[in-house]
Amino acid sequence: MRALVVTGPGALSLQDVTRPSREGECLIRVRAAGICGTDLQILEGYAGFAGVPGHEFVGVVESAPPADAAWIGKRVVGEINVGCGACAWCDRREEGHCPNRNVLGIRHRDGAFADFVTLPARNLHAVPDSVDDETAVFAEPVAAACRVLEQMSITPGQRVAVVGDGRMGLIVAQVIKTVTSLVTVFGRHAPKLATARGLGLTTSASSGRPEPADRFDIVIDVTGRPEGFHRALDLVRPRGTVVLKSTFHGEARLESWPIVVNEVTLLGSRCGPFKPAIELLASGAVRVKPLISRIATLEDHGPAFADARRSLKVLFAM
Amino acid sequence: MRALVVTGPGALSLQDVTRPSREGECLIRVRAAGICGTDLQILEGYAGFAGVPGHEFVGVVESAPPADAAWIGKRVVGEINVGCGACAWCDRREEGHCPNRNVLGIRHRDGAFADFVTLPARNLHAVPDSVDDETAVFAEPVAAACRVLEQMSITPGQRVAVVGDGRMGLIVAQVIKTVTSLVTVFGRHAPKLATARGLGLTTSASSGRPEPADRFDIVIDVTGRPEGFHRALDLVRPRGTVVLKSTFHGEARLESWPIVVNEVTLLGSRCGPFKPAIELLASGAVRVKPLISRIATLEDHGPAFADARRSLKVLFAM
Repeated sequence: MRALVVTGPGALSLQDVTRPSREGECLIRVRAAGICGTDLQILEGYAGFAGVPGHEFVGVVESAPPADAAWIGKRVVGEINVGCGACAWCDRREEGHCPNRNVLGIRHRDGAFADFVTLPARNLHAVPDSVDDETAVFAEPVAAACRVLEQMSITPGQRVAVVGDGRMGLIVAQVIKTVTSLVTVFGRHAPKLATARGLGLTTSASSGRPEPADRFDIVIDVTGRPEGFHRALDLVRPRGTVVLKSTFHGEARLESWPIVVNEVTLLGSRCGPFKPAIELLASGAVRVKPLISRIATLEDHGPAFADARRSLKVLFAM
Repeated sequence: MRALVVTGPGALSLQDVTRPSREGECLIRVRAAGICGTDLQILEGYAGFAGVPGHEFVGVVESAPPADAAWIGKRVVGEINVGCGACAWCDRREEGHCPNRNVLGIRHRDGAFADFVTLPARNLHAVPDSVDDETAVFAEPVAAACRVLEQMSITPGQRVAVVGDGRMGLIVAQVIKTVTSLVTVFGRHAPKLATARGLGLTTSASSGRPEPADRFDIVIDVTGRPEGFHRALDLVRPRGTVVLKSTFHGEARLESWPIVVNEVTLLGSRCGPFKPAIELLASGAVRVKPLISRIATLEDHGPAFADARRSLKVLFAM
């Protein structure tokens, strides 16, 4: 089968490789997959990953172990963490923190920029017919955005800032808007902010620090850059919360006194629940089609990755 | 009156100055005051403070406005934040976050390394006769430790690490031990760890990273150093909480991925409630006398500050 393979920092090539096979798992024929910021960081060497990247996908189950035969032929999306099955984290179905987990396209497991991928049936979610492939492929990042609502209570009157006008920012802002209308997206890219406004979001290109009374209860940093983290600390009110929704490659400078003196909470946030994510996509509460800037083939991976660095969402269609 | 005055980075001198006077406030004759890590940082230039430092004190009210005359003659400790009285924070009695606040010996208000200090009556707490001066002077740092219990729920089965074997570490550990017995103090100073064990605390001099199953639910960094913050991130379990209880002067390097991938919460924590602090000191649940390494006079400030950099607690007796 075809697969994009990372062979080292910056080195990605389309190769003909053996179909993946893992005992007890389903084989899924990938129909579409999305390029995420983590994929761009993996290409730069993040996490030392070598293999097939890609963890946002939709596909059809091609084959399955006998016990999971009911999945065959179903159109699915998939949770990306696969735990060891034997630790306390796995017992609680929190495989995302199993110390021996592997992660689709990120850690010790080949991902979805390929014709086929495997996952255990317990990781799969059926996609309703009303959700097309180009929408379903966003289930994973929308789930990650939904994770914030699992971690903290956000109430209708609270003011939330989303720092970053990229693909993840526009998804997170839409998810948060389902619980409070007072969401503002901060960004520096006029075309992306225009897309945000087209989605009904309030935007700001301001780079100044707001007056104390105008600071935000909750600030979600999705920039993937140290400057975004510092910007978030400027925007949050005392006793407010900064959610770190994306990692940055490299280091930021951290002064502790603004966090201590203002008693700010920083909250790391990663993978989230697929069920509410699929519901938000099905209901149209989260709209993702306006984020798609290019649908590419695996053969076209060079321009596709280049485009993903500056535009909103680039998909591969297999 | 006598007062220690910071005139610039590293410059502290005993001076003869006018008694402080602020309209509507009580005048307090200071009986004892403690040197805190923040005082040492102020001497190094933290917060650009110039004036009289000192914010941990016990004293006797010498005079008061007519409405507060009942305070005259009472032995008191005092909360250190004085708000503007007109903002939403002050309305909620959260003066510690009033954007126009001043702070005793830290920000726009002379402190307690002097014969007299002033504070509004609403900041004062009477000290029970059973609590002597050398104990009462710890009310402010014990209150700061109690703040952690206001900010988060800690349950008896939870495992807590305190990083730092200094004065604040040994206070925080004793306060946390009132809710969970599973507290370990991590430090590098054998004599201080011995003092901790004398207080009934479990200690560790280990600098290695524990196995996943041995990491802590909650880690409280009281080192005031960037290395302590990094150590705390090593000790905390996924989805655990790191409390930043002391500021460090300067910057730490921060990599975001351990916080995001492990979904760690960082919680800044500052001033706390005096009432439970005084109760803990009165009941003996928190013992502070073993922390006192020197009781000095204001004239003896040079050796006193030098000692405070390496030992546990140094007090001034006026």
